[in-house]
Order: sequence, then structure tokens, then C-alpha cells
Amino acid sequence: MFPLPVPMRAALDAARLAAAEGEVPVGAVVTLEGVVIATAANAPRRLNDPTAHAEMLAMRAAAQALGRDRLENCDLWVTLEPCAMCAGAISHARVRRVYYGAADAKGGAVEHGPRFFGQPTCHHRPEVYPGIGAAESADLLRGFFAARRL
Amino acid sequence: MFPLPVPMRAALDAARLAAAEGEVPVGAVVTLEGVVIATAANAPRRLNDPTAHAEMLAMRAAAQALGRDRLENCDLWVTLEPCAMCAGAISHARVRRVYYGAADAKGGAVEHGPRFFGQPTCHHRPEVYPGIGAAESADLLRGFFAARRL
Repeated sequence: MFPLPVPMRAALDAARLAAAEGEVPVGAVVTLEGVVIATAANAPRRLNDPTAHAEMLAMRAAAQALGRDRLENCDLWVTLEPCAMCAGAISHARVRRVYYGAADAKGGAVEHGPRFFGQPTCHHRPEVYPGIGAAESADLLRGFFAARRL
Repeated sequence: MFPLPVPMRAALDAARLAAAEGEVPVGAVVTLEGVVIATAANAPRRLNDPTAHAEMLAMRAAAQALGRDRLENCDLWVTLEPCAMCAGAISHARVRRVYYGAADAKGGAVEHGPRFFGQPTCHHRPEVYPGIGAAESADLLRGFFAARRL
């Protein structure tokens, strides 16, 4: 086993925080030139915000930190395959690379469903690196849903 | 010509406000039982937020107003066909009906591109009513982009 990259470890830590708050455990980090500039945990219930996926919160925080509405040269690290909402936001933000953990056959929109970045109308396609920390992310999700079924 | 429904007129007013701020003129309104509970203008540049489409801001404000993360029984009125990000958010929020104005062949994701609500993995499909105020919305967009090309 290779050690996981630092940003994905931080995203997994954020996912654990989400679980502790009763949210589906997903975490995300934005880096610029290898430096973490935003970290977020999935929080729709806590924030009363249907758009508050970890990726969305991390990208919004990164844009605020940079004082602009696009994240050129930034990379996104997220523990779960992004959904259509988040994939669309990634394109709007012009994110350079997306590294993600577990695949999401039910809600994912990168390698599943609409496969958004492969659509002819997708106006910005990041480089995509799946499966980084997939086992750790899937374990967190399995544990969370198993505990809720008890 | 029939008069436009009040919420779409409010959405068009918000689109005009967006244009006055130098943003692509799109506006959105959320109603609950016919009452407007949130109105928003497209504002990614002003807010330094790549996710700040009118629909996203209106849905987030509506969820805040209701104190919950889902907009069951709520309807969304937006002057332009929603993109993939916004369509994904509409599903997450469980919006009941979507009324929209102009079609968007380049970025739309309802009747164009990924046709998100028709995807097998889409977990909530609103009723969709296109073309409400389409001419007014298209006029605003044409005027905005024509002025920027001068």
C-alpha cells in the first residue's frame, strides 16, 4: 500500500467529521499548487441547504479565499464520486484536476449516470483520477449506513 | 398573449437586476403553495462563487427560510433552462415543479446535454414546464451579450 496523498487524508478526516454530525460521510479539499486552501464536510442537514455537499462547500470556500469565481489551477480532492450538481459546479469553477475516492453507482455523475464530463455540452473537463482512498471512503460510508439501519 | 404568472415576472425582474450588476441575466423564484418564499439573481462574479446561479441562490434561501434541507411541495421558476449543477440541486431539494423560460442549447441539462431528469440514476424528477416567459428571457440574454460585444 502506498500512503494516501495528504489532501485525500484531510478529505477523509472531513468525511469522519460529517459522520459525527449525522451527515453522510463525504469530505472534500481544494488545493492550489499543492497547498490546501479549503476543506469541507458534507452538511446539507446541519446547514439546511440541499446544495451543501462537501465539494460545493470546499469550492465555494476556495473561491472566497481567492477572491474570484473560478478555481483555475486548483485541484479538488473528494472522498466520493461527484454527483451531477457537483460535477456541473466543477466545470463552472474550471477546476484543473479531480481526485476522488469511492465510486458511486447510485448518484455519481462522472463514471456513472450522465457521465457529465463526457457530455458534448460540458464546457470544461478536468483531468479525473478515481479510486484514491476508495477503500477508506467506502468503509466510512458502509459503517455510517450500517449504524443507521440498527 | 396570456399574462405571465407572477413568479415568472418576479424571476424576470431578478434577471434584469443581474444584468445591471454585469452578471448574465438569469433570475429565479421559489414558491410554496403559490406564495413567493425566495427570489434570486445570478451572481457568481459579484459573490466570487462559481455555484451562485440564480436557481441555487433561490433554493438555498428557500431552504433557509423553511429551516430544512428539502423543498418538498415547492416550485422553482427560472428564466433559463437549468444547467447540470442546478438540475442536480433541484433533485436533491425534491422540488415539485420547475417552470422555466428560454431553452439553453449550450448549457442546459433538462432538454439538452445530459437531460438529467431522464437519467436512470436521477433520484427525483420534478414536473417540468418549459417556455414560460421564454421570449422575454431570451430578449434579456440577447441584449446583455450584444452590449458586451460592442
